[in-house]
Amino acid sequence: MAETLIRPARDEDFEAIWPILRDVIRAGETYAIERGLTREAAFDLWVKAPHATYVAENDGAIVGTYYIKANFAGGAAHVCNCGYMVAPAMRGQGVAGKMCVHSQAEARILGYRAMQFNIVLASNKGAIRLWEKLGFDTIGRLPQVFDHPKLGLIDANVMYKWLEQDCES
Amino acid sequence: MAETLIRPARDEDFEAIWPILRDVIRAGETYAIERGLTREAAFDLWVKAPHATYVAENDGAIVGTYYIKANFAGGAAHVCNCGYMVAPAMRGQGVAGKMCVHSQAEARILGYRAMQFNIVLASNKGAIRLWEKLGFDTIGRLPQVFDHPKLGLIDANVMYKWLEQDCES
Repeated sequence: MAETLIRPARDEDFEAIWPILRDVIRAGETYAIERGLTREAAFDLWVKAPHATYVAENDGAIVGTYYIKANFAGGAAHVCNCGYMVAPAMRGQGVAGKMCVHSQAEARILGYRAMQFNIVLASNKGAIRLWEKLGFDTIGRLPQVFDHPKLGLIDANVMYKWLEQDCES
Repeated sequence: MAETLIRPARDEDFEAIWPILRDVIRAGETYAIERGLTREAAFDLWVKAPHATYVAENDGAIVGTYYIKANFAGGAAHVCNCGYMVAPAMRGQGVAGKMCVHSQAEARILGYRAMQFNIVLASNKGAIRLWEKLGFDTIGRLPQVFDHPKLGLIDANVMYKWLEQDCES
């Protein structure tokens, strides 16, 4: 398996990021993002609005991307949220896990102390298993919170992890 | 007890809404909102950005206010979020409960099918009790999610209710 390099995204990376986002967004099966979102709105959502955005590269090709942003304001601004997407051809090869480990270290550097995933779909069993393996607790389950294009109304997990000093190890 | 009238907010109502918001925001003890938020930013947050904003009046005086907005996008856009605030002199007189009942009916009219409160502070026992009484389930508890000015890091509940046809009864 090729070495995966994770680095901050530059604006010009969006050329390669957009096809990854577009396929996930258009499918509408994993993220609570409007399926018809334009490229411009996706740039705002994934690159401009977040605190930081990163890409994962294999042999110089962008194969995944993630963002970090504050999940709350005010007294809860120490809690961040991340979103991760991996190119279809590269799924199941550990890229998401590497990005999540990387994001926990980056989040601490950026001053966050906890990370929350607000809506991890019950149908996305691979993601739930991976986040649990990486130390996230399932805080609770939101019933019928997501209208899946194939499955109809499904539940989702709220997942949360306090970021310890050694979270990147 | 005076009759409480709940109606959509008009822009000019912000003159009366702002002191209510300001006191709650500056205290920083119940809402995850930046304590130093300006009046202009508070208008955006409470009136401009949400789907709808309402005021509760007693004898023509505004004593409370709430907003409704989508809590998620895409496949979860049927879930809304509300925030409620009551003038200090009017607390404990049922205004929040009346606003919450009103908001559930309004949310259905606006097309939402569920309502979620993302961060109900553990210290805010009155709110947790009231939302439970009004049919909300505590889905889970986020540990140390809020840095309370007096209590330090405290937990908060994620609360959720499916809005049945008869929710306003």
